[in-house]
Amino acid sequence: MTHAATPPQQLADLLATCLDNHSLPGAFYNDPLVYQADLDRIWRRGWLFAGHSCQLAQPGDYITVNIDVDSLIVIRDDDGGLRALHNICRHRGTVLCHEPAGRVGRIVCPYHQWTYGRDGQLLSCRGMQPEIDKSQLGLVPAQVREVAGLVFVSLSDDPPDFEPARELIEPLARPQGMERAKIAAVRDYEIAANWKLVWDNNRECYHCNANHPQYIKANFDHYNADDATDRVREKIAAATARSEAKWAACGLAVTHRETGMAPFPDASSKGDRHGWFSANRTALVDGWVSESMDGRQIAPLMGDYADPDVGTLRIRTMPNFWNHSSCDHAVSTRLLPAGPHKTLAQVTWLVQADAVEGRDYRLEELMPFWQLTSEQDWELCSAAQRGVMSSRYTPGPLSTFKEYNVEAFRKWYVKQLAGV
Amino acid sequence: MTHAATPPQQLADLLATCLDNHSLPGAFYNDPLVYQADLDRIWRRGWLFAGHSCQLAQPGDYITVNIDVDSLIVIRDDDGGLRALHNICRHRGTVLCHEPAGRVGRIVCPYHQWTYGRDGQLLSCRGMQPEIDKSQLGLVPAQVREVAGLVFVSLSDDPPDFEPARELIEPLARPQGMERAKIAAVRDYEIAANWKLVWDNNRECYHCNANHPQYIKANFDHYNADDATDRVREKIAAATARSEAKWAACGLAVTHRETGMAPFPDASSKGDRHGWFSANRTALVDGWVSESMDGRQIAPLMGDYADPDVGTLRIRTMPNFWNHSSCDHAVSTRLLPAGPHKTLAQVTWLVQADAVEGRDYRLEELMPFWQLTSEQDWELCSAAQRGVMSSRYTPGPLSTFKEYNVEAFRKWYVKQLAGV
Amino acid sequence: MTHAATPPQQLADLLATCLDNHSLPGAFYNDPLVYQADLDRIWRRGWLFAGHSCQLAQPGDYITVNIDVDSLIVIRDDDGGLRALHNICRHRGTVLCHEPAGRVGRIVCPYHQWTYGRDGQLLSCRGMQPEIDKSQLGLVPAQVREVAGLVFVSLSDDPPDFEPARELIEPLARPQGMERAKIAAVRDYEIAANWKLVWDNNRECYHCNANHPQYIKANFDHYNADDATDRVREKIAAATARSEAKWAACGLAVTHRETGMAPFPDASSKGDRHGWFSANRTALVDGWVSESMDGRQIAPLMGDYADPDVGTLRIRTMPNFWNHSSCDHAVSTRLLPAGPHKTLAQVTWLVQADAVEGRDYRLEELMPFWQLTSEQDWELCSAAQRGVMSSRYTPGPLSTFKEYNVEAFRKWYVKQLAGV
Repeated sequence: MTHAATPPQQLADLLATCLDNHSLPGAFYNDPLVYQADLDRIWRRGWLFAGHSCQLAQPGDYITVNIDVDSLIVIRDDDGGLRALHNICRHRGTVLCHEPAGRVGRIVCPYHQWTYGRDGQLLSCRGMQPEIDKSQLGLVPAQVREVAGLVFVSLSDDPPDFEPARELIEPLARPQGMERAKIAAVRDYEIAANWKLVWDNNRECYHCNANHPQYIKANFDHYNADDATDRVREKIAAATARSEAKWAACGLAVTHRETGMAPFPDASSKGDRHGWFSANRTALVDGWVSESMDGRQIAPLMGDYADPDVGTLRIRTMPNFWNHSSCDHAVSTRLLPAGPHKTLAQVTWLVQADAVEGRDYRLEELMPFWQLTSEQDWELCSAAQRGVMSSRYTPGPLSTFKEYNVEAFRKWYVKQLAGV
Repeated sequence: MTHAATPPQQLADLLATCLDNHSLPGAFYNDPLVYQADLDRIWRRGWLFAGHSCQLAQPGDYITVNIDVDSLIVIRDDDGGLRALHNICRHRGTVLCHEPAGRVGRIVCPYHQWTYGRDGQLLSCRGMQPEIDKSQLGLVPAQVREVAGLVFVSLSDDPPDFEPARELIEPLARPQGMERAKIAAVRDYEIAANWKLVWDNNRECYHCNANHPQYIKANFDHYNADDATDRVREKIAAATARSEAKWAACGLAVTHRETGMAPFPDASSKGDRHGWFSANRTALVDGWVSESMDGRQIAPLMGDYADPDVGTLRIRTMPNFWNHSSCDHAVSTRLLPAGPHKTLAQVTWLVQADAVEGRDYRLEELMPFWQLTSEQDWELCSAAQRGVMSSRYTPGPLSTFKEYNVEAFRKWYVKQLAGV
Repeated sequence: MTHAATPPQQLADLLATCLDNHSLPGAFYNDPLVYQADLDRIWRRGWLFAGHSCQLAQPGDYITVNIDVDSLIVIRDDDGGLRALHNICRHRGTVLCHEPAGRVGRIVCPYHQWTYGRDGQLLSCRGMQPEIDKSQLGLVPAQVREVAGLVFVSLSDDPPDFEPARELIEPLARPQGMERAKIAAVRDYEIAANWKLVWDNNRECYHCNANHPQYIKANFDHYNADDATDRVREKIAAATARSEAKWAACGLAVTHRETGMAPFPDASSKGDRHGWFSANRTALVDGWVSESMDGRQIAPLMGDYADPDVGTLRIRTMPNFWNHSSCDHAVSTRLLPAGPHKTLAQVTWLVQADAVEGRDYRLEELMPFWQLTSEQDWELCSAAQRGVMSSRYTPGPLSTFKEYNVEAFRKWYVKQLAGV
C-alpha cells in the first residue's frame, strides 16, 4: 500500500540465504516485502514489454498496461511517435483510460474533463484558477522504445540503455515483419503464482516431455547434454545445417544450433545492467514448418519470408516477455505482476496484416499449440506456488543439464535485487 | 486486526507531506495505518449518522450500524428514548442482532440466551454462578442524539457537544417533518474507494456538468465565481428572491443564496471540535419544485409544507452524512468505512408517513434522480481510487473557484488527524 | 507469508492480559501474529487427527491433509505401515498430490517426474547430474500414529509421547471397530471463525438448549450442577447403572457418569505436554440407542457390539478432533486452521465396513443428527467471530457450572502459547 522501500538489511539477509544452483528460498516467492523489492528493483527499473506497434497504427491508438498499482497509456502521438504516459490525471489522480485499448483524439479525464494531448501535455483544465501553470501539469511520461514491432516501456527515469537490445533483436526479427502484422487473437490469464515461478517454468524444458506433448513434437529444446543420443544430435545437426543454408540464402541470421535451450539471461554479460534480452533463430524438427498442431503452415507467410522453412525465431526479455515466431504466425507472452501470488499473462497471436480470418487462417488451427502449452505451464506454476508456501519447503538442487537457465535466471534476479 | 494506535511520529511525518490546496498524498487513501488512524481519530470520536427516527417508532424497534469492526444497536427503549448499545454480548462477545432492522422485546443473545433490556441492562444470564454482578454486565452504551428525525451516534465516551448542531439543524429541518416520514426505499452500495475520496467527490460540483445530467437541471451548484454569467447570477438572484419571500411567509429560514456550494466543513469554526455540520435551504431552478427527473412534484408534500416551492433543504455532517430534501421527499446518504479501499453507502428515500406507494407516489419517479446521481459518483470515486494507488501519483492543485470545499474538507481532516 | 516467529515479548505481553475464567482477549481471535504463534506452538508441535485408517487399507492408498500452508500425504506403505510425508517435491517444491484421497504406485511429481517410493525415498530423478545424492532427497517425513482406526500426524520432529493417548483410547475404542469401518459420508465446511472459537463452542453445552434441539433429546450433557434436578440426576444414575451393568457384561470400559461434560482438556495433567486427549463412554437417555433423529438404530452394529445399548463413545484430542460413536455409526470431526478467521471442518460418518447403502442404512437417516448439530455450531462460531472483532469487545466471565471446559481449554491454550 505504502510504497516503502524494503529494509536493506532484511533483504540482504534474505539474499544471503540463496544457494548456487538451487531454487530460491520460500520468502522470495511469498513474502510481501520481497514482492515490493521486486517491484522497486526490477519492475520499476527495467524495460517491460507493453504490446505490439501494430496495435498502435494511427495517431490516438492506445493500449493500457497495468504493472501492479501503476497504469500506463502507450499511445501513438500526432507525429507518429510512441508515447508512454502514466494513466492518472494530474488534478486528483483519477485513472484516465479504462479500456485495454482504444483510440482517442485527446485524453480527457472523466472526472473534471482536464484534457491532455496525445503527447501528454495539459491542453485545458477549465475551472482552474488562471495562475495554474499548465506546462507543469502534463501527464507524467514514461520511457518507451520500439524494436521490430515490439513496444517496450520503462517506469524508470533512468532505464538501462535500450540500444544493445535493439542491435540484437532488430536484424533477427526484421524478416518476421511483426510491425506489419495484425492481432489475430488474445487470451488473458491470471496465474496463481509469483512471477518468478513463471520464469522458473519458462527457462527449462526439463518439464516438457511429460507436460507438453504438442511442444516436443515441434522442437528440440528438451534434448540436453545428458539425453541427446547420437541420433538426436545428428537430427539437430542436419536440421540446423539445412536451415542455415536456406536462411543464409534469404538473408536470415543464423544462431542457436545446440541441444537444449539457448542460454538466458546472462547476469554477467556486458556490464551491470545488460543481459536482460536475448533472441535466436532455431531449427524445427524435420517436417515441421510452424509451431502448429501438426507442423504444417496454417496462415500466410509473414514479413519478408519467401519460404516456410525458417525455423522459429525466439525473443525473450526480462522480466516479462517471450515470443515464438514461425513462418506464418508469431506468439507473444506478456507477464505483469499483480501480487506476491498472482501474475497476469497475456498471450497474443499475430498473423500477416492482410490475412483474413476464415479464409487465410482459422483460429482453431492457429491457437491450440501455444494455448495448450501456456495453460499446461500455468497449472504447473500454481502447483509450484502451493508447494513453496510450505513451512518445510527448502530449496532443491537444479539440474546442471536441464536447468542451467533457471540458475541463470536466479543469478540475474539476485543481482538485480542486491542492486549491485 | 489489533487496534493498535498509529505510531504518532509516522503519522506526523505523513501529515507534514500534505500541501495546501492540493489533493492528499497517496498514503492517505491507501495505507492501512492511516485507515486505522482515521478510525481512531475520526470515526470513533465524532458523531455518525445512524438512521431515521421514523424507523424507530415503537419501543423495541431497532437498527444496526456497522462501523468497520464495530457494530451498534440503536433501539427505542421502554420510555420512548433512544439508546445506542454495542451489539456484542458481555459474556463471550457474540454479535446479538444480525438484521439491519427489526423489533425486539428483549435483546437475547443467540448463543447462551443472556438477556438484556431495551436499555442494555443485563436482565438474566441463566446458568451463571450467583456471584456474577449483573449490574456490571450491561451492554456497553454508546452516545445517541436525535435532531429533526435524524439519529446520530458516537463511539466516543466523550464526543463533541451536539447542541450546536441541534441549534442549526432543528429550525431549518423542522418543516420537512422527517420525524413523521416513512422509508420509501433503501439502496445499499459498496464503493471501491477510501471514504475520503467519497467526500472529495461530494464536496464539489466541478464534476457535475459532464457527469450529472439530471442533477444540473435542477440545481445552481455547478455555477461558480468563474463561470456564472450575469444571466445565471440574475436567475439565481430571482429564484432566491422569489423563494425567500415565499419561505418567509411560511416561516422557513432563509440561507444559502450564492453561486456554488455552501462552504463546508469549516475546520476553523467555533473552537476545536465544531465545524462538522452544516445545513441550508437553497433555491431550485425556475420551474423545478422537486429533485425529480422533470422537476415536478412526485409525492405528497412533507411535514409542514403548504406549498411545493420550498427549494431544497440540505444537511451534511462529517464524516458520514448528507441529505437533500425537496417539498415532497427527502434523500439521506450514510457512509460507513469498511477498509482502506471500501466504503459502504446507504441511500434512503423518505416520503410523508401516510403516503401510499402506487397511489401517492411511484418508486420509478421517486428514485432515479438520486439513484443515478449517486451511482455516477461511486463510479468516479472508484476511478479515483485506482489512480491514487499509483506509485507515481502526486497531489494535484485544487480549483479555488470550484473545489474550495474539497480544500475545506482536507483542512478539517488534517486537523482531526493531527488531533489538535 | 514469512514464517517468522512472533516476537516473544509481544506475545508475553498479550498472554499477560488473559484473565482466569474469562473468554480470551480479542487479539487472540484476530491478530495475525497470534495466529502464527498458534501455528508455531500448537499446530506444528502436537498431534493432529488426519483421518481414518480404513481410508488407507491397501498399500498406496493415501489422503492429503492441509494444515494452513503445510500439506501432508498420509500413505500406506509397501510393508503395510503408515507414513506421513510432506507433500512437496524436494526438487523445486511443487505440490505432489492434489486430490484429497487416492491410490498411487509411486509418488511422481507432475513437474519433472521425480519419483518417490511409498516410503518417501527418492527412487529416480531422471535428468539430474550423477553426483546428486538421492538418499538425501527423500520426501520430508512427518510423524504418524494410529490408534483404534484413527490416524494422527505431527509436523514436529519431536512430538509429545503418543503412548499415553494410545493407552487411554485403545481399550475404550476397540469395540467400536473403526479400523474395520467404511466412510459412509463426508461433509466439508469453511467456518468463518478462529479455530479457538470452534473449541470454545465445542467445550460447553451451555448453548445446547436453545441451539441443538436434536442433540439434547439424546444426551445428558446440558444438565449441569446448577440445573440438574433430582429427577434428572436419578435419570442419569439409572441410565448409567443400567448401561454399566450391560457394558461390563460385554467387556466395555465404564467411564463418565456425572452431569455435564467430561472434563477436558487438562492443562495440569501428567506433566508438561499431556492433557491433549480424552475419551469416555457415556449413557444416552432412556430409549435412545443411537445419536439419530429419533434415537433408533439406523445401521448395522459396528465392531464387537452385540447389543445396541452401548451409550456413546466420545473421543477428543487437542487441537483438532472429536468423535461421537454410537452402536451403529461413528462421526469424526477434523478441524484445520486456514487463517485467523477461517477454520476448515470435515465431518465424516462411518458405518460397519460391509454395510450397504440403501439396504443397511440410508444417508437421510444417518446424517441429520450431526449435520444439523454441526451446522448450528458453525453459525454460532461465526457470530462470535464478528463480535470479538469489535474494538469494544472485552473478555466476559465464564460459567463455573457450564463452561469449566472452556476455561480448561483457555488454560491449556495459554500454557501451550507460553511454551512452559
